[in-house]
Amino acid sequence: MSTLDEAGTPLANAIRFLSIDAILRAGEGHQGVPLGMAEIATALFTRHLKFNPADPQWPDRDRFVLSNGHGSMLLYSLLYLTGYARIDLDQIKTFRQFGSHCMGHPEYDPASGIEVTTGPLGQGIANAFGMAVAEAYLNARFGSGIVDHYTYAFVGDGCLQEGIGQEMISLAGHLRLGKLILCWDDNRITDDGSTELSISEDVRERFRVAGWHVIDVDGHDIDAVSAALELARKDPRPSMLACRTVIGRGIARLQGQRGGHSGKLFDADAEAARELLDWPHGPFHVPDEILSAWRRAGRRSADSYHAWQARVAALPADERAEFERIQAGRLPDGWRDVLEDYRRRAAENTEAQQGIMVSAEINDLFATTLPERMVGCADLEAPTSHKRRLHAFTAADRSGAYVHCGVREHVMGAMANGMAAHGGVIATCVTYLAFSDYERPAMRMAALMGLPVNFVFSHDSIGLGRNGPTHQPVEILASLRAMPNMHVMRPADAVEAAECWEIALERKDGPSTMVFARQALPPVRCVHVAENLSRRGAYVLAEGVGSARQVTLLATGSEVAIALEARARLEAEGVATAVVSMPCWEIFDEQDADYRAAVLGPGTVRVAVEAAVRFGWDRYLGERGGFVGMTGFGASGPAEVLFEHFGITAGHVVEEARRHLLKGIEQELKEEA
Amino acid sequence: MSTLDEAGTPLANAIRFLSIDAILRAGEGHQGVPLGMAEIATALFTRHLKFNPADPQWPDRDRFVLSNGHGSMLLYSLLYLTGYARIDLDQIKTFRQFGSHCMGHPEYDPASGIEVTTGPLGQGIANAFGMAVAEAYLNARFGSGIVDHYTYAFVGDGCLQEGIGQEMISLAGHLRLGKLILCWDDNRITDDGSTELSISEDVRERFRVAGWHVIDVDGHDIDAVSAALELARKDPRPSMLACRTVIGRGIARLQGQRGGHSGKLFDADAEAARELLDWPHGPFHVPDEILSAWRRAGRRSADSYHAWQARVAALPADERAEFERIQAGRLPDGWRDVLEDYRRRAAENTEAQQGIMVSAEINDLFATTLPERMVGCADLEAPTSHKRRLHAFTAADRSGAYVHCGVREHVMGAMANGMAAHGGVIATCVTYLAFSDYERPAMRMAALMGLPVNFVFSHDSIGLGRNGPTHQPVEILASLRAMPNMHVMRPADAVEAAECWEIALERKDGPSTMVFARQALPPVRCVHVAENLSRRGAYVLAEGVGSARQVTLLATGSEVAIALEARARLEAEGVATAVVSMPCWEIFDEQDADYRAAVLGPGTVRVAVEAAVRFGWDRYLGERGGFVGMTGFGASGPAEVLFEHFGITAGHVVEEARRHLLKGIEQELKEEA
Repeated sequence: MSTLDEAGTPLANAIRFLSIDAILRAGEGHQGVPLGMAEIATALFTRHLKFNPADPQWPDRDRFVLSNGHGSMLLYSLLYLTGYARIDLDQIKTFRQFGSHCMGHPEYDPASGIEVTTGPLGQGIANAFGMAVAEAYLNARFGSGIVDHYTYAFVGDGCLQEGIGQEMISLAGHLRLGKLILCWDDNRITDDGSTELSISEDVRERFRVAGWHVIDVDGHDIDAVSAALELARKDPRPSMLACRTVIGRGIARLQGQRGGHSGKLFDADAEAARELLDWPHGPFHVPDEILSAWRRAGRRSADSYHAWQARVAALPADERAEFERIQAGRLPDGWRDVLEDYRRRAAENTEAQQGIMVSAEINDLFATTLPERMVGCADLEAPTSHKRRLHAFTAADRSGAYVHCGVREHVMGAMANGMAAHGGVIATCVTYLAFSDYERPAMRMAALMGLPVNFVFSHDSIGLGRNGPTHQPVEILASLRAMPNMHVMRPADAVEAAECWEIALERKDGPSTMVFARQALPPVRCVHVAENLSRRGAYVLAEGVGSARQVTLLATGSEVAIALEARARLEAEGVATAVVSMPCWEIFDEQDADYRAAVLGPGTVRVAVEAAVRFGWDRYLGERGGFVGMTGFGASGPAEVLFEHFGITAGHVVEEARRHLLKGIEQELKEEA
Repeated sequence: MSTLDEAGTPLANAIRFLSIDAILRAGEGHQGVPLGMAEIATALFTRHLKFNPADPQWPDRDRFVLSNGHGSMLLYSLLYLTGYARIDLDQIKTFRQFGSHCMGHPEYDPASGIEVTTGPLGQGIANAFGMAVAEAYLNARFGSGIVDHYTYAFVGDGCLQEGIGQEMISLAGHLRLGKLILCWDDNRITDDGSTELSISEDVRERFRVAGWHVIDVDGHDIDAVSAALELARKDPRPSMLACRTVIGRGIARLQGQRGGHSGKLFDADAEAARELLDWPHGPFHVPDEILSAWRRAGRRSADSYHAWQARVAALPADERAEFERIQAGRLPDGWRDVLEDYRRRAAENTEAQQGIMVSAEINDLFATTLPERMVGCADLEAPTSHKRRLHAFTAADRSGAYVHCGVREHVMGAMANGMAAHGGVIATCVTYLAFSDYERPAMRMAALMGLPVNFVFSHDSIGLGRNGPTHQPVEILASLRAMPNMHVMRPADAVEAAECWEIALERKDGPSTMVFARQALPPVRCVHVAENLSRRGAYVLAEGVGSARQVTLLATGSEVAIALEARARLEAEGVATAVVSMPCWEIFDEQDADYRAAVLGPGTVRVAVEAAVRFGWDRYLGERGGFVGMTGFGASGPAEVLFEHFGITAGHVVEEARRHLLKGIEQELKEEA
């Protein structure tokens, strides 16, 4: 290792001092990464990374992910130094201030050069893995002239301790993603102190066991790192550079120690560092010569960029149009017709169908119409059936659109995020709803970044039956509906499923959670209409007849049929009752007040029925509202027995409606008296 | 490997046919594990496991966890065969029927011999890890005469692919838990088919890298498995028996194949198996000779059991009382006084205190009063400070009560569940609230099992400031409140924190989530009262004065102080306003209707304020209710700027109250007109 009293290179030190100055000004921040990885970053950005700050979203750029996102000043420094217009010196100076582009953690903004939001550990390397999968798939589809780039990620000990990191290591090794290259900041320090407090294993060996190419390198030696990157790029395996570094290198008081991570910096630290590293320049000042060198690095890929543009321009017209279409995330002409045709046929069907198998059928339709779709699944191919017309993406065959993720839900979700952030691919992932909890931290990141990922789930309630409460979601619909920017859709039958899929595929500014039943659902939409009724989130499926509506029954998914049965009984008793199907609350909540009121029926008794907990429903029920659903966890038994046992039946819906009607009458009498 | 046409042993075949018959009768189930692991189970239960079916909860029994819980018939067969009274043949015959003890997946019931609920993959081995930690800690405390047992877990490929499983491997190896022994069902099949679809790494090597002792063994050779278990028990490292097996062994049509996992069985399969394995006995019939052999195995540990009882009886009286106390989960005399004393002092304090540091102070108090508490933390020792008066539990020192879990939240939560299920330990784990999502699948299991784990979180809102939206929970309170049987507590100051800790420690039938702010909170409870006001979940902190209450402000945690400020302004305007602090919704919801009404103030305008999304609040707000809080994700910036930016201020609470008062007046005028 190069000794600490060496001056280091001016280019790396430019990163160091921008970071020190910004953190000092902010009064807080994490200096450990930018100071410890400055040489690694310099090697990558000045000699290897294919990128163009003038066109940050060049589709064939190498992707760079700072998985240890707390070290965000490293990224901001690099973006400024290499010349990304949106990260200028003023932004750097406002690091961690409200409204700054230089936020505490990097936040997804590809136009600024920020490929993904990172911070929650392990997400970034799993996103990088997803980017590498997308690249390999698109490379197989469009050829190396059009798609051929690396994905680099910087990673600390935390990301590798997290289960999601371990899942990624295992799966990326299995898939032999040779263009995925990690630089591990092996500084032997985490927030608690020495890594020896919580880990003894040889991390290098752990990667090797999983089939990775591992190179040991002095992380402060730019030439050595550069040589290692060269080796990494040539190896057919994914590569991990184990870069031995000193955390917080340059701050003599803290470097190599626990405090190097994010211990508070003082003016004296910065002064001492300037002395130590021979950096006589003032705060936020990068001498022209050094800045010019960095800017030259930022123009390094200009030839590649223009050559690539020429190759794209030279593509046959249809191929070029197709490439541009998927890059823009535009769906192909006629895609809606496929779904409308499906809806038309579904409306004629009178047989009950397993909820998830309806989604599988729709997925089959997309196999040819939307070749940009990739589907990952967590070892539930048979019970979810979203593979059928796809073939597997493997180490040997990159043309497959179906990724067998193994029993690894978390990396699956983050992979999908990485695919979506990469572009050119529409990402879907599939598992059981109970296991969405395993995937949830990635789903949250999709919502936060506004990535259009389709999170598909089967086995959505006690209706899955005898596998019991571990597998029966009761609180999970509520927990996902609570998440900002997440659309949660629970279609009632095949027609609604096609409508929801249409909405999910249209969505560009956030993820959709699509929830399907395991059990067979009777059709509830038996008349074809051109309009996608689910597009308003909720709608009157059946209006009260005869007199003015007295009761409004609200339901989703498998319980819509129960509500219809309850309505039939109430109508038979002369109670005018409407059924409202609510496939997506979030969309309904965005409708205008008049529409919402018309659907919910002001002044009517409202009873919701859903095989889940009441939590969240009150917003629609009002003070005269009733609820039929779950009050706790489920049980092991046949689905029909469970629905009966937990009282999720038309009979109970009728009783609940009657009870509230009666309460209303009593109330009126009391008020009159 | 023993060849498939060998008969196998009658003892193992008793497991096989009970399982086949039960699954056949149920019409579904997972035969792969009970048929594939029958010999392994026979070796363990007839030659090694220390247990007593007549006293299933013998504190020093070996623990056995079926982490691949879908293979539940293996466990039920073993419990019946060895003589656990509550799992009799009638229960076996009702496998997977509603109300049966033999549920689809094993559900926590230690009195029946079911140590933990398993099914969601990876949880079981992580629970087993927690049990092994608890054993080592108690062994250090009480000596090998009193606590000295092994923890065995059966595990399939799925558990090991899951991130939580990988976290467990890494941490258990680091901690050298020599009495933790896994038997891996290496059948090379998962639900999707060959494991080659999703994994290439050498699983044995992965364990070895992490410091485990790995033994390869033919999983169908009872003697070989037994010899390997013998070796495993002697090794100071945790051991993994890589048991090569044939999935579904005995069902000729399916064994060794994908369908062996849970492919539907038919009568002809059972008949063919009877032929193949030379088992001429009828359904559910275990010949006396074989049953007797199993029952003898169930009495194998009788001598150990009695010797252990004698050793406990011979303990010095105080030591014995202490051991019995912690086993019973009774808290020591005077523990409440410690908290009340803290509360008294806290009520006199007028300075703002960081929320999490208050919890840290209370944690310090317990260091001596509750030595049975163990605390795990996910690499956030400094910012959460729950170590201070504890020392680390390490490979070399088992007397430490603080487990450095590394950046591994998921295994931390499941470890705590395992500790709680083990008994003798009160488990707490600590991280940031944003990372509760990583831990959530384990939290759900705690809620489902009803385990009294304390899940402690810091950094509970935008109040954490500049680390930005990745670290700022906005939806997480709601998502946890949606979970059945989970108490979510968000104390407003030190007094409430002590009250909430008292309630959490008292709770025996489920977990508590305790949520603390990073930022300093001004005291809101400045007068000491003997009563624990939080015990009712919510209470009137300040009543409206002058006239009848017109406005009720509802708040939790850091927003209680904001509500108090808003109340002062409203009262100054002559609006009688109460502030209700709601540290725990779930407890409040259990109070009688009169109390709830009195707190919520029927007919008053209600405005809730919480630095989180509104989701779930409507149940308390009624149709005239307002809300001041978050509508989406947070942002990076100083806490005070963020509260202002997102409008979570006393001023906005006042405005919201005024707006609703006005609406009410307008409504009345309209009704009068």
